[in-house]
Order: sequence, then structure tokens, then C-alpha cells
Amino acid sequence: MRFDVLTLFPEIFSSYLGQSLLAKAIEGNLVEVHPHDMRKWANDKHNRVDDRPFGGGAGMVIRAEPVVECVEAVQQEGNQPGRLIMLTPQGRRLDQRLVEELSQEKRLLLLCGRYEGFDQRVSDLLHPEEVSIGDYVLNGGEVAAMAIIDAVIRLIPGVLGDETSSVDDSFSSGNRLLEFPQYTRPRVYRGLAAPDVLLSGDHAQIAAWRKQQSIERTKRRRADLLDRQAETEDE
Amino acid sequence: MRFDVLTLFPEIFSSYLGQSLLAKAIEGNLVEVHPHDMRKWANDKHNRVDDRPFGGGAGMVIRAEPVVECVEAVQQEGNQPGRLIMLTPQGRRLDQRLVEELSQEKRLLLLCGRYEGFDQRVSDLLHPEEVSIGDYVLNGGEVAAMAIIDAVIRLIPGVLGDETSSVDDSFSSGNRLLEFPQYTRPRVYRGLAAPDVLLSGDHAQIAAWRKQQSIERTKRRRADLLDRQAETEDE
Repeated sequence: MRFDVLTLFPEIFSSYLGQSLLAKAIEGNLVEVHPHDMRKWANDKHNRVDDRPFGGGAGMVIRAEPVVECVEAVQQEGNQPGRLIMLTPQGRRLDQRLVEELSQEKRLLLLCGRYEGFDQRVSDLLHPEEVSIGDYVLNGGEVAAMAIIDAVIRLIPGVLGDETSSVDDSFSSGNRLLEFPQYTRPRVYRGLAAPDVLLSGDHAQIAAWRKQQSIERTKRRRADLLDRQAETEDE
Repeated sequence: MRFDVLTLFPEIFSSYLGQSLLAKAIEGNLVEVHPHDMRKWANDKHNRVDDRPFGGGAGMVIRAEPVVECVEAVQQEGNQPGRLIMLTPQGRRLDQRLVEELSQEKRLLLLCGRYEGFDQRVSDLLHPEEVSIGDYVLNGGEVAAMAIIDAVIRLIPGVLGDETSSVDDSFSSGNRLLEFPQYTRPRVYRGLAAPDVLLSGDHAQIAAWRKQQSIERTKRRRADLLDRQAETEDE
């Protein structure tokens, strides 16, 4: 799978791309990540990518021209233009279902804003899918792009050591609820013992305990997920 | 404000910390970010931070001991222990209100999981606030910690060039809705003109147009935010 990240700060990605799981996926040719500096497409006499907003107000707006031209050039680099995603707090909220959908693509272009965002005509001309990683405001789309890459690559076959280990994750296809509590050695740590059932060797009992813990935890913390699951099952 | 990031992959943060706005905030002594490698607290004979889950299942669980000891040691480094946040998909979902609350703190400790997460006794012993950046699963808490740092620092006075520019952001204190569309030069780009009202110089009309656009966009894309705002106004 190929990711192209269009940004004003490509250097932010360098140590992220060198990290364990992603570095291994890149090394194993399962994933490619190409950061592109949109500043290279700023062709006005001052090489400016941003300018003051029409109508006034604080901050700067990213000009349409360098962004539109950068996207068009990058789309032509591969065999296919890819699915264009703009990271913006105004977009559709990312969830695990969208992550699963994105992991089926061959190529994603991730368009990262900064400052007061893009000139509206970027969206009007390119019709990107606008995606938000949550209801908060970041300094730019770069960390949001990392979140998408992080979430998507773990669903690409071969990237995780053990392919079953993403199925039981919170919100995931094998389990739309929160994950159950996990324990490992030692059995007792600072007076707290791991639950006996996990050491019983009785797989049916362990599975039942985990399912019950998962439901209880979800009920306590995120009852909205149970409602949503009930709706899906009704369909 | 001081951030301590407790992670198994401290090197992921290096180029993120060198980026424009954050680098300037660090340089200006407005923000400190200290990554800590939890592996240094793995004192068993094999220096292992993870082990297989009790009860079986895919993946590895992070052992309680190195995490608890790392947190305790890092808490003692500063003048105050700080507010301890564990990044986990099972946590309270981050939103701009929580970001605003966190920006009032003097110190945040961000605890980043990996693999199948932490041994449950980390939470039982340390009682961290569990926070999730969204309903999807990342490879670890590192990108989530960056999202928190990114969102929080822009609310620290002096970090943004113009302090008013965070108030009108989507979800923010001056505007709990989605932000209005922005335009900048040129007035016409590829046949698309910026709205005349923005060039009118009539500030009252511009403000009214922006408010209306903000409401319409929110209604179209995120009607749930309007419901929530109505509830808040009723209180």
C-alpha cells in the first residue's frame, strides 16, 4: 500500500517513519510512505503558500494554487491517482470502520493543513474526502496523517507479527466493544493477583470471562458503543 | 508547561519535537517535552518489558513492573507529580473541552502503550486518567501523545503568533461548531471566485455570513454538535 503525505512540514515524519512496526513494514515492501513538500508548488514571486484571509480575521489561510497543483502532480506519479483525504476538524470523524475501509485501498493521498486551513476552493476543485481524527484542533494535519497511517497499516496482512491480533482490538471487526483487561507475569504484583480464571487453563471459561469483562467495561465507560452495536445487529 | 512522555519508542518523537510551532515553543521556554524510555525500568534478568497474556491469546502485554516503576521515578523528577494520562482506546474520548482543561495544568505525564496494552494492574495501582483520541486502534500511544501535545500547546499563551486565532477554531470556546470556509488571494482561481461579501469591507455582514456558514456546515456534516450546543445553552 502506498501513502503520499502532502504537507508544509515533511521533516516532521522522518523519525516517525523510522519506528519499529512501520519501519519493518516499509522494509518488507508492504507499505510505502512518500512525504511531499507543498511549498515546492508555490510559484508566485514570493514563494508564499499562505496569505491573509479575505474578510479579515486572525491567522493565515493556505492558498489554493500550490495545493491543487501539488495534488495533481502527485496523483500522476503512481499507477492510479489514489483516494484523496483531507485532514480537517470539519471532516467525517475517523472510526475503526473507516480505517478498515481505507485498508482495502492501494493508495491514499493524505492532505495536511496548517494555520487557519485551506482556501475553500481546494475542496471545491479536488473534492477530497474530509476526515477528522476527533473533535479537537491540532496544529496541522501531520499528526492526524500519522494516526491514519498507524491505524491502517496494522490491518495490512503481514504487518503485525500475528495477524489475528488486530481482530480482537477495541472497536474492531471481531469485537466492536472495548477490549477486556489483560494480565501477564508475575501472578501477584504489589499484592494484586491476576484473576484465577486466566490461569485455569479452561479456554471456554476464559473466553466467557473476557466477553463479560468487555461488555461490563463498555457499559461503564462507553454505553454509546453498545447502543450502536444493537442497531447494527437489528439491521 | 512540562510534558513527560513514557514510551517504549522514545525515538519516534525526535523529528516531531523539531517541528516549527512546537520547536519554537520549546525554544521560547513555554513548553518542555521529555521522552522517557520505559525499557530502562525492565529489571528482570531478560530486560523484558512485555510477556504473553495470562489466559492465552495473540500478542504481548506490557508488564506492570517497569511501567509502575518508571512512572514513579518520573513523577519524582519535577516539583509536582503532574497529571497522569494513559493513552488507550478504552479511555474517555478526547475533545476540545478536555484539551482546554489539560492546557491549564503545569505538568502532564503521557503513558503510551504498545502491543496488546498494559497489564491491568498498571491502572489498578496508578489510577491514571485513561484517554482515547478516537474510536480506532493505533499501533501505540505515541501518535496519540503527539495529538494531545499538539492540541494542548496551541492553547498555551504565547505559543500561537496571534492568541485570538485558537478561539474561533472548530469546537473551540469561541465557537463550538465547525469553522466557516476561508478564502485568500487570488479573488478568482480556476474560474471560482471568493464570495463578494468577504471583499465588501462590511465587518458586520462578514461576521453574519461566517456565522451562518458555520451553522449550515455543522448542520450538514455534524448535526450532533448542534444538539450538544443546545443542551449546553439550556443548562
